[in-house]
Amino acid sequence: MEKRKITEQRADFLKTDYERGFIKFCGFKAVSAEWGRFQSRVEIMQEHRQQDGFIHAGVMATMADHTAGYSAFTTVPGNMQILTIEFKVNFLRPAFGDALVCYSRVIREGRQIIVSESEVFDVREGHEHAVAKAMVTLMAVPQDKLIKGKNRDKLLG
Amino acid sequence: MEKRKITEQRADFLKTDYERGFIKFCGFKAVSAEWGRFQSRVEIMQEHRQQDGFIHAGVMATMADHTAGYSAFTTVPGNMQILTIEFKVNFLRPAFGDALVCYSRVIREGRQIIVSESEVFDVREGHEHAVAKAMVTLMAVPQDKLIKGKNRDKLLG
Amino acid sequence: MEKRKITEQRADFLKTDYERGFIKFCGFKAVSAEWGRFQSRVEIMQEHRQQDGFIHAGVMATMADHTAGYSAFTTVPGNMQILTIEFKVNFLRPAFGDALVCYSRVIREGRQIIVSESEVFDVREGHEHAVAKAMVTLMAVPQDKLIKGKNRDKLLG
Amino acid sequence: MEKRKITEQRADFLKTDYERGFIKFCGFKAVSAEWGRFQSRVEIMQEHRQQDGFIHAGVMATMADHTAGYSAFTTVPGNMQILTIEFKVNFLRPAFGDALVCYSRVIREGRQIIVSESEVFDVREGHEHAVAKAMVTLMAVPQDKLIKGKNRDKLLG
Repeated sequence: MEKRKITEQRADFLKTDYERGFIKFCGFKAVSAEWGRFQSRVEIMQEHRQQDGFIHAGVMATMADHTAGYSAFTTVPGNMQILTIEFKVNFLRPAFGDALVCYSRVIREGRQIIVSESEVFDVREGHEHAVAKAMVTLMAVPQDKLIKGKNRDKLLG
Repeated sequence: MEKRKITEQRADFLKTDYERGFIKFCGFKAVSAEWGRFQSRVEIMQEHRQQDGFIHAGVMATMADHTAGYSAFTTVPGNMQILTIEFKVNFLRPAFGDALVCYSRVIREGRQIIVSESEVFDVREGHEHAVAKAMVTLMAVPQDKLIKGKNRDKLLG
Repeated sequence: MEKRKITEQRADFLKTDYERGFIKFCGFKAVSAEWGRFQSRVEIMQEHRQQDGFIHAGVMATMADHTAGYSAFTTVPGNMQILTIEFKVNFLRPAFGDALVCYSRVIREGRQIIVSESEVFDVREGHEHAVAKAMVTLMAVPQDKLIKGKNRDKLLG
Repeated sequence: MEKRKITEQRADFLKTDYERGFIKFCGFKAVSAEWGRFQSRVEIMQEHRQQDGFIHAGVMATMADHTAGYSAFTTVPGNMQILTIEFKVNFLRPAFGDALVCYSRVIREGRQIIVSESEVFDVREGHEHAVAKAMVTLMAVPQDKLIKGKNRDKLLG
């Protein structure tokens, strides 16, 4: 992929935008944004775990999806929103550390259909262990189509 | 699939077991459990939504995964745990209702490898609208292998 | 899904169109086409098998993908083509019978993004055994965009 | 992944073993095998294409699956067979070149569950263009379990 850039302003906007709603509730933080790439992190709390101490697959899947979405965001104009069409995720190893980090990158650019992949690592005593990998199919949609109400059902075209 | 049954006791155990850790944090509730099937529900709160009012894909994915896992649980002996190997989920329509319900069923029984599918519906004014569908590959593992500590990495075999 | 119909002429066109190129080479046959549904069949020959006698996963995957695509075709206007964006397939049981049949149906209609699922059955002594299940994400594209040459790379938008 | 090795003999055995049954019928050739990695190639003939000249998604999917399987083969003892549990594949760009090459590598080693990924490239005038990416979940099974007959149904455990 050729080296392209986003402005610092745009990177800051996307990093702030990342941490809202369900993602804020889950405690995920944006770490960095550059063209075609996005990185995030979450400090693991008791509520991210299952009863047996392992971090829930849903935490990793949500992080992989949301971070992939923001990697796509870095490649589209400011008036576009990103929707997830579908994703798939393999859990490579159980996660039980102190934090998770997620690295996402666009592997297929597009005006409309974008494909990103995410790698999630479990941080244990400062070392990162690969725990999940996801491929995410995304769609760029003009923001003004995202009107609340009865047209929502039509969103994916 | 032939008609098999689980005891009321086992159904109650699994329904209680369902609502712990990250799942409790997310507010998901078990609705019913029978052999090869599991149903769950969540009343949507502000924290399940994105900034634009849509329910986050991660909420649906987590529900689809966790409920699929418990449908698998209904088909294995009491000393087995269920781990998610991988899942994939398509988002069929945007979700923005008052509640989500999830119906999961085993489509491939097995001593070790189990495949379930989950359908998630958005409840709007009492009507259920299909919003996500997932296929989930699961693994049954003897509970006594789930020891905390350094053997965890070996868990998936 | 409400009951809609395609003309007999359209059904015949799609059934003939189904059996071309790589699909003809593989010996797959269209069985039936109705609105949102498509069925196909292949008589298993030695070249569909692996050295150990099992039918190759690629045969089932190709059948699941292609038949899903034609189920989508039944729901779009005659000037549209269908492209596969992605698919995922679980192999439920080994297949080693005399024929495979595939049933596909649209689970998400759309002007642009269509989702279908396919179930593949192994025919052994006249009985059908479920061997694979796939979810397929498809895109409807105006036929006149399918021009040979340098614009092809832009096809998925 | 630490640097491990397979013998030249084992590499040659796997490369020969690769090209049988449906894979031979499709004309795929093994190119190279090393620990955790496998590469393959196919010269495109008319029968790999659709009516519109594009290479069929099924050709790419079969190549991605089979080559991933052989990357897993390089990491297991000689008495083990590899079965595909499931795979998912994104089609990144249309393929219409003279050949396809596929690079597969193991991203999750395991005694039993192995995950590999495959990247398929379209060769056009000597340049490789990424056209498909797949994640494949595989299972290592002792060869002597692969007995023809009624136990086959039990294969995936």
